[in-house]
Amino acid sequence: MSADQQVKDIVTPMENATIATEQKAEQIVDPWNVQGAVVDGKQMSIDYDRLIESFGTRAIDEAVLQRMETLTGRKPHVLLRRGVFFSHRELNRILDRYEQKKPFYLYTGRGPSSDSMHLGHMIPFLFCQYLQDVFDCPLVIQLTDDEKFLFKPNLKLEECIRFSRQNAKDIIACGFNPEKTFIFSNFQHVGGAFYHNVVRISRCITYSQSKSTFGFVESDNVGKSHFVSIQAAPSFSNTFPAIFGDRSDIPCLIPCAIDQDPYFRLTRDVAHKLKYPKPALIHAKFFPALQGPGTKMSASVDSSAIFMTDTQAQIKNKINRHAFSGGGATMELHKEHGGKPEEDIPFQYLSFFLDDDEEIARIEKEYRAGTLSTGDLKKRCIEVLQKFVGDFQARKAAVTDAVLDHFMTPRSLGVDLSAK
Amino acid sequence: MSADQQVKDIVTPMENATIATEQKAEQIVDPWNVQGAVVDGKQMSIDYDRLIESFGTRAIDEAVLQRMETLTGRKPHVLLRRGVFFSHRELNRILDRYEQKKPFYLYTGRGPSSDSMHLGHMIPFLFCQYLQDVFDCPLVIQLTDDEKFLFKPNLKLEECIRFSRQNAKDIIACGFNPEKTFIFSNFQHVGGAFYHNVVRISRCITYSQSKSTFGFVESDNVGKSHFVSIQAAPSFSNTFPAIFGDRSDIPCLIPCAIDQDPYFRLTRDVAHKLKYPKPALIHAKFFPALQGPGTKMSASVDSSAIFMTDTQAQIKNKINRHAFSGGGATMELHKEHGGKPEEDIPFQYLSFFLDDDEEIARIEKEYRAGTLSTGDLKKRCIEVLQKFVGDFQARKAAVTDAVLDHFMTPRSLGVDLSAK
Repeated sequence: MSADQQVKDIVTPMENATIATEQKAEQIVDPWNVQGAVVDGKQMSIDYDRLIESFGTRAIDEAVLQRMETLTGRKPHVLLRRGVFFSHRELNRILDRYEQKKPFYLYTGRGPSSDSMHLGHMIPFLFCQYLQDVFDCPLVIQLTDDEKFLFKPNLKLEECIRFSRQNAKDIIACGFNPEKTFIFSNFQHVGGAFYHNVVRISRCITYSQSKSTFGFVESDNVGKSHFVSIQAAPSFSNTFPAIFGDRSDIPCLIPCAIDQDPYFRLTRDVAHKLKYPKPALIHAKFFPALQGPGTKMSASVDSSAIFMTDTQAQIKNKINRHAFSGGGATMELHKEHGGKPEEDIPFQYLSFFLDDDEEIARIEKEYRAGTLSTGDLKKRCIEVLQKFVGDFQARKAAVTDAVLDHFMTPRSLGVDLSAK
Repeated sequence: MSADQQVKDIVTPMENATIATEQKAEQIVDPWNVQGAVVDGKQMSIDYDRLIESFGTRAIDEAVLQRMETLTGRKPHVLLRRGVFFSHRELNRILDRYEQKKPFYLYTGRGPSSDSMHLGHMIPFLFCQYLQDVFDCPLVIQLTDDEKFLFKPNLKLEECIRFSRQNAKDIIACGFNPEKTFIFSNFQHVGGAFYHNVVRISRCITYSQSKSTFGFVESDNVGKSHFVSIQAAPSFSNTFPAIFGDRSDIPCLIPCAIDQDPYFRLTRDVAHKLKYPKPALIHAKFFPALQGPGTKMSASVDSSAIFMTDTQAQIKNKINRHAFSGGGATMELHKEHGGKPEEDIPFQYLSFFLDDDEEIARIEKEYRAGTLSTGDLKKRCIEVLQKFVGDFQARKAAVTDAVLDHFMTPRSLGVDLSAK
């Protein structure tokens, strides 16, 4: 790669800032908006320490990692080691149960707003797959097609259901255990015991709480302020009689991006009122857009995302053309002053997907010193992502409709319901 | 009956007014409150003409009765002839379809808040049974056990479902056609196509609309402002695929008490947005409490109601002891000035249940003239109610769990789905 090309590939922070729809000073993190603060016209990264403080969660520290390693006998997942899963609520309570061989389950979800999932969407599922693997526990995955329908006035209901089924195939391709995983679309599955818990929950949450938690206004539809009841329900085991019978005392751990925490803060309040166990949570940082760490990868901004359907050539092209670089403005300046890995998107992507701790440490060191060029860093990032996406596509090709139907059928997941 | 006893039996308007929980000047009619205006400390009857005006409905006039008689070849039901069903929205559109042999259906419902249904609860069902009989059409009956749970914080969910099944037996005992009637509890039936319409509807109604229609405040739970979506859904035929397949163009007629109209005003707005036919309505007056025509019979005020489980002796006792009389304060005054049938509860009850037009006209005339005593009027009322309740109890004894399960099973009701 020539020096000229390197210069052209660099997207400056000012260009990057234009993808923010509003220039606000404060950072915004809620289920519908993720945007770092803007200081002096510059788009800043998300301040995760501030989120821990303002949301009232706990940081995942060395002690948690140690305990995970001791309990599971395996090195913690790369997303834990690199601090992508950085925050939690009562994770220790779930680890206690694992230690005591008491049942618990995992719950995560996805809002299926399009056919295409991208790299960022994979993060909670990759991590869930690891947790299911080490804990050998059941997992329920909610596809909130109803939420997408309520919040996106142009979507048709049938489209939302179709997105659910498409996205479920992507999720299955992450490698979940078919005997211990139940994936469901709300439009197809809400009813019975599930609906009972929805109504129980909706009786415990005032409009005022929903409004202040999510920022609704009176012209928002009644489905929006009520929706929290639907997302909360899978946190309680008696929502799934096929899996848990009538047991309401089996707690869950919810791996999710930090923007989903407001739903589960309300859910934890409700749990107390309904005498159900509170869900524990483990929170991920956002997967940054190609344009920089101030916002998250978005399926609706095509140039911001690497999709799981992208070809090897598209991946290479997107990284080379769009990925924001923390390198020097010219090759000479880069050699003289070095790069900034903390601002560099290819480096960040590597830190999510490159499992080798020694290599990532070496890359960081050399990039900071200016001995590794932006071009070579991008090259390594492209290799790693091409392999990840290629492997994913091979697994997905094996996900037939029959496999999909199996995952989406309510059924026993082999939980020992006599264990307390 | 002695003159003394007659005096004792009379409940004065002032005593009657004490059952009002608040002394307000304006009449209040919404799904949770029915209370006539209070003028100079006196509890007034509900002003139904004002309701027609403020709700924007149409009065049922002689022309409608004539058309019903011509179309069906039967004398209109006593509840139509006596003006109990007094108001409608687009009833003519349904009569047009009947004339053109195009399909339509009936939809009504009940909020099952206790084991015991009373005489007032029977009114919409008696009328529905007549409509089903003359039109030979399908009928769906929604038991809003979820609504009762949301609005009554002390009820348990399991109780609400139990009330649904108990009440369904009472409803069946009204004589519905088992091949054309589907009765469902929301807790048991919401899901699938029903849930799809619930979400479609909830996307069309803003919090602001729900709040202003029903008078909610921000400390009300999110289930309340959302509940209209659940009550609206059965107005649309594709909510019931077992009955109507995927047809969304079959309209319904909703017989209900006028206090339910706010739900269906919103529903009619939503129908327009969703390109579904608007439901037509036919509205009943309230069945007055024993204490007088200023409020409705209430299951939660035991002395206000004659329950369908009451014995013959209890009916006699309640009418004699509690029924507000429009007769003179003494037998002498009654003979001199006559009674006021329009204020007299036994007369009102007779007007709901005594089919014989000549007899009711004679009773009214003689009572107004003072030649028929309060005691004799009560005696006739007791006879008619004892027969009605006795016959009901005999029919209810035949409603086994197997019969109940049949009515509550989603199934085809024999609709010709090829008819447009």
